[in-house]
Amino acid sequence: MKLPVGILGATGMVGQNYIRLLENHPWFKVSYIASSPKSTGKSYIDAVKDRWQMPGPIPEQIKNLLVHDANIVTEAVGKCNFVFSALEISKEAIRALENEYAANDIAVISNCSAHRHTEDVPMLIPEINHDHIKIINAQRRNHGWKTGFVAVKPNCSVQSYMTPIFALINAGYEIKRIIITTMQAVSGGGYPGVASLDIVDNIVPFIGGEEEKSELEPLKILGSIKNDKIVPIDSLKISAHCNRVPVVDGHTACVSLEFGAYKPDREEILTLWSEFKSLPQQLDLPSAPRQPIIYADEENRPQPRKDRDNDKAMAVTVGRLRLCNVFDYRFVGLSHNTVRGAAGGGILNAELLVKKGYINP
Amino acid sequence: MKLPVGILGATGMVGQNYIRLLENHPWFKVSYIASSPKSTGKSYIDAVKDRWQMPGPIPEQIKNLLVHDANIVTEAVGKCNFVFSALEISKEAIRALENEYAANDIAVISNCSAHRHTEDVPMLIPEINHDHIKIINAQRRNHGWKTGFVAVKPNCSVQSYMTPIFALINAGYEIKRIIITTMQAVSGGGYPGVASLDIVDNIVPFIGGEEEKSELEPLKILGSIKNDKIVPIDSLKISAHCNRVPVVDGHTACVSLEFGAYKPDREEILTLWSEFKSLPQQLDLPSAPRQPIIYADEENRPQPRKDRDNDKAMAVTVGRLRLCNVFDYRFVGLSHNTVRGAAGGGILNAELLVKKGYINP
Amino acid sequence: MKLPVGILGATGMVGQNYIRLLENHPWFKVSYIASSPKSTGKSYIDAVKDRWQMPGPIPEQIKNLLVHDANIVTEAVGKCNFVFSALEISKEAIRALENEYAANDIAVISNCSAHRHTEDVPMLIPEINHDHIKIINAQRRNHGWKTGFVAVKPNCSVQSYMTPIFALINAGYEIKRIIITTMQAVSGGGYPGVASLDIVDNIVPFIGGEEEKSELEPLKILGSIKNDKIVPIDSLKISAHCNRVPVVDGHTACVSLEFGAYKPDREEILTLWSEFKSLPQQLDLPSAPRQPIIYADEENRPQPRKDRDNDKAMAVTVGRLRLCNVFDYRFVGLSHNTVRGAAGGGILNAELLVKKGYINP
Amino acid sequence: MKLPVGILGATGMVGQNYIRLLENHPWFKVSYIASSPKSTGKSYIDAVKDRWQMPGPIPEQIKNLLVHDANIVTEAVGKCNFVFSALEISKEAIRALENEYAANDIAVISNCSAHRHTEDVPMLIPEINHDHIKIINAQRRNHGWKTGFVAVKPNCSVQSYMTPIFALINAGYEIKRIIITTMQAVSGGGYPGVASLDIVDNIVPFIGGEEEKSELEPLKILGSIKNDKIVPIDSLKISAHCNRVPVVDGHTACVSLEFGAYKPDREEILTLWSEFKSLPQQLDLPSAPRQPIIYADEENRPQPRKDRDNDKAMAVTVGRLRLCNVFDYRFVGLSHNTVRGAAGGGILNAELLVKKGYINP
Repeated sequence: MKLPVGILGATGMVGQNYIRLLENHPWFKVSYIASSPKSTGKSYIDAVKDRWQMPGPIPEQIKNLLVHDANIVTEAVGKCNFVFSALEISKEAIRALENEYAANDIAVISNCSAHRHTEDVPMLIPEINHDHIKIINAQRRNHGWKTGFVAVKPNCSVQSYMTPIFALINAGYEIKRIIITTMQAVSGGGYPGVASLDIVDNIVPFIGGEEEKSELEPLKILGSIKNDKIVPIDSLKISAHCNRVPVVDGHTACVSLEFGAYKPDREEILTLWSEFKSLPQQLDLPSAPRQPIIYADEENRPQPRKDRDNDKAMAVTVGRLRLCNVFDYRFVGLSHNTVRGAAGGGILNAELLVKKGYINP
Repeated sequence: MKLPVGILGATGMVGQNYIRLLENHPWFKVSYIASSPKSTGKSYIDAVKDRWQMPGPIPEQIKNLLVHDANIVTEAVGKCNFVFSALEISKEAIRALENEYAANDIAVISNCSAHRHTEDVPMLIPEINHDHIKIINAQRRNHGWKTGFVAVKPNCSVQSYMTPIFALINAGYEIKRIIITTMQAVSGGGYPGVASLDIVDNIVPFIGGEEEKSELEPLKILGSIKNDKIVPIDSLKISAHCNRVPVVDGHTACVSLEFGAYKPDREEILTLWSEFKSLPQQLDLPSAPRQPIIYADEENRPQPRKDRDNDKAMAVTVGRLRLCNVFDYRFVGLSHNTVRGAAGGGILNAELLVKKGYINP
Repeated sequence: MKLPVGILGATGMVGQNYIRLLENHPWFKVSYIASSPKSTGKSYIDAVKDRWQMPGPIPEQIKNLLVHDANIVTEAVGKCNFVFSALEISKEAIRALENEYAANDIAVISNCSAHRHTEDVPMLIPEINHDHIKIINAQRRNHGWKTGFVAVKPNCSVQSYMTPIFALINAGYEIKRIIITTMQAVSGGGYPGVASLDIVDNIVPFIGGEEEKSELEPLKILGSIKNDKIVPIDSLKISAHCNRVPVVDGHTACVSLEFGAYKPDREEILTLWSEFKSLPQQLDLPSAPRQPIIYADEENRPQPRKDRDNDKAMAVTVGRLRLCNVFDYRFVGLSHNTVRGAAGGGILNAELLVKKGYINP
Repeated sequence: MKLPVGILGATGMVGQNYIRLLENHPWFKVSYIASSPKSTGKSYIDAVKDRWQMPGPIPEQIKNLLVHDANIVTEAVGKCNFVFSALEISKEAIRALENEYAANDIAVISNCSAHRHTEDVPMLIPEINHDHIKIINAQRRNHGWKTGFVAVKPNCSVQSYMTPIFALINAGYEIKRIIITTMQAVSGGGYPGVASLDIVDNIVPFIGGEEEKSELEPLKILGSIKNDKIVPIDSLKISAHCNRVPVVDGHTACVSLEFGAYKPDREEILTLWSEFKSLPQQLDLPSAPRQPIIYADEENRPQPRKDRDNDKAMAVTVGRLRLCNVFDYRFVGLSHNTVRGAAGGGILNAELLVKKGYINP
């Protein structure tokens, strides 16, 4: 018996990815799809039509599902235990709507940025801050919700380097300063998104709002719960340069980092990375990569086309660990932005929350 | 009456660019071409054949020039006043051969890296260190050369950010640390160079030797002449991450920099950049950009395809000047790697050296 | 004294190309720009803003021109002798509006498809059917217009093969059947146009309406004037497969053609192509290529990036002429779609019409 | 118990694809790998090194296999029942070597073009001409071989359109003339293969030898066995234009075809395609696509990135079936060139030959 799950924003790119990745999920089954009012009442295949961007066709069991209006929360009640939110409306509207689902006893696992800095909402990378899920108890008390709640995941590009960085912090090393340059895939811009005239034989050294997210979100992810709030760490400074490049999928990041007083040597870092496992691996969650951090030995890796699909596209692949002329070390990190960085990451969050009893069967 | 000039390595990509850019040069005329022994004795069109990569056809006056053996220096004597060197042999062989041309009274303006760290050889970006040409007098004394000498230009990617950085140093601001990530065009890898399977829907986060060059060469460029040697500055640290991206021409750099005790404000930097002119502009050299540093106001520029050709592809275009979360400022720089960064830069060097009397008509 | 000219649809991609190509035109000067009502009253730089797609900046003399409402025809009166039309509204609206300009004594040189099959409107490729301009006299009589008229140019992809085909027809050879496959650049789709997710590592074997245009328009271009109408030829059948490919500029066409009873041999075709000149060359029009058809000898040419800019991007480059296994001959044709195939072609039309006295100074 | 199989040319691109596709094959297990003498004696991982181009790492069980010299046939004896040949040497050398393996009782399933027009060697697309395997009996008699033989597969691009064409012929319709234009992926050129400077923002309208293969090979595939020879059909004429495009994997073909006296209507063609099954489907061979011909309804499909992986990358996807203005019908066909068109096609051939008793367990 699989858990019935809903998708809000099911016709957009992230929604399509949820549908694709959930097709054969061992625990979950898509039972409810909702979108903006203009698709309401259509079958999914009619609503999405020429905009289906996934490899392979729309899964058979989804084609004829009726698309509901995501704004009418009561329609979802009784049809699904929780929803994945990939809404494409204003932040204010998303916050209100996600809260309303939670108030109606429907847990919300969100891809949206709206609630990322709400103090009692966990922003999860399960390998890093799985213990932040405890804040959900406070969140429920604050709102008077019973079984509903909101949990979010961070921005897609953050996954390309945060797990390897956390593996070092986790071993007791303080990291003080990080300068990052990302080279991000066009799929991160949605569809139609980035115009071909902006990206064929070109790069665009700007992605609206991306640098701010990359500099702020890690501080909350690495934060701790105090007085029923998640308090960001204040000992770390991040500077991010974000670029769009002519790559379909896979965000690459060049990272320079400075340790505090104690610095591991190169061999120790490689060992910390290769041995790093966390709760998703211990719980053997279906979407968890067996090896969360894969180190590529070749001097010219990781590369997006060749490494983005490693371990079901859920692993982070790193390479080129070497001394930095200015800080202590530098390396290159890579993850699949629409799987690990979006729908796949959301599904892993849901798996964790089911396993830990926050979502009831 | 134009000065006759020779090209060593005339059949390679850089050599082809010299031929293209010199086609209508007001001062210089290609009178001698040389290459490896296997092309010797052929006409240029037969030697280069299917490997001609320039837009448009081989210039008419070059097509039937005989290709000489670059190793037989005496063949060049009497046929040209100076040569552009774009040899593709070992560094040791290049050093020896360039010296031999100089010993035969033929000045060598080199694109090669072989002599870049020879202490009495100037490594020139004319807008920055034009005064380094004075070392040529010492070089001639050291070797007993009369009119010959060797001058070189730095690596192609360095031009994308060094002039804007120098404009700030030139105004009296000390810069202590720089972290740079480059996104470099495939033309920088020569022909056939980068395989399409490595770059379509992909990036390669590694270019052999490029990071070392990017970290070392600026120190000499910013150095000063002491006791007949160019002594690199030692107060600056640079860390470079170099990536290959699917762009035909134009190297882009994301730069974070840290000033010393005194820091300009943003407006002052913009003014320093927009007002920056140097000797090539004052001398009105034919290949000098009128505006060496162009600031692009749009939030998503510079972009390689749209900005690489600015001012005859000889300007550096910068943009996105903003505060850095970790250092003081960050910006994006761009220049055309095969023009400003290679053949065009070499020609500008030659123009400077003619105008200042180091190359005799 | 240059002729003042207006541009309708000046903020779109074709409009931007007109502005770029007219910057230093010897006969014409942009004096009037108009667009949709939402840009009305703004300066050009404010109206076009982040959508400027041309290499290099907006020309200085255009930046601050006021953008007029293209729907208010009377505003153009007295400000320009003729207009280039690159409107992006419905065909019906374009037909009505272009007629209204003509009725107000303003000649219209149009890029739009709206009037392409109007019987008294010439659809011009000046090297092929310059004599069709005589229909303008009938057009003026039909409408009671004095100095105004409408002339159009065909679809961009047609230029890549029609001139070489015409050169054979012009020599007396009948051509009966043509099968063409085009590989068209993304700039043909406007901006934002083709989504990057549709074209990075991909091709799209469909362009809406393009095949129909490619099959019909040549018949009118090759037609003749009878009873004050342009009557298409009926002895030719064309089948076109149109594809979008990841190329910025330059439409390539693979052509197989079948002659009537008489067939030239390969040498004769090459001679006909290399010797082909027409009225634009005889009149030495400023935008006319000196050599309208350039044959590339290399077995792997023409290629869009390497050949699109031949002769100011106004020449057609052909190559690979060889026997066809099914028809008689096959070859590859290429032209620059936004220059020869759009704004450059429109400017050449205007030059012809000025020189022949249809546009008055 | 899996059949042990060898791979000749194991370090090249096709060889790598065999290794990747055979990793979890239900019947076959790679037990022997051979390459050119310069790799002999190394482990596979050392021999292939930086040239491994497949997504994901080298399979564990292959990494440490010793690479043998493909020229020393006796080394393979006893180590494998048959070999996949992907040799990259001269045609003459391949013919001799493949024969020598066969003479040593090792069956050869070849990807190479060397034996494609040998009269007693079947060139197989199992869905089309599976009955050609009977010629192997004659081949064995001609050479005096016992269990060895040579069977080949056709050129990669041919698969993109031959199965849909055959489905019509198979239903009794004669096809007289076909004009095809292909747009072929860079992976078809091997590694390093196509230079990035030839394909970024570009297409190359020429692939050496490809048009000849595309025009000749189908005639043999559609031929019949007479007097112990495969005799090509002579009633069909094909003309092929072959282009290289910036796509990683997947060859696309635009096809115009002319029927004989009887022509199916559009609905009948669609039915013939959707109902087409052949021996590989009836035998339920592991690599056989369940649906050999998939028709994509959308007007802009098939597209290489979105359709190449259909049905394990072994199906042909067609679309845009419509009337042709010159011939009878036209359509677009697509298949994955390195799977269906190369290693996957070879494996399907082997599966057929095992099942039909030509390769002994």
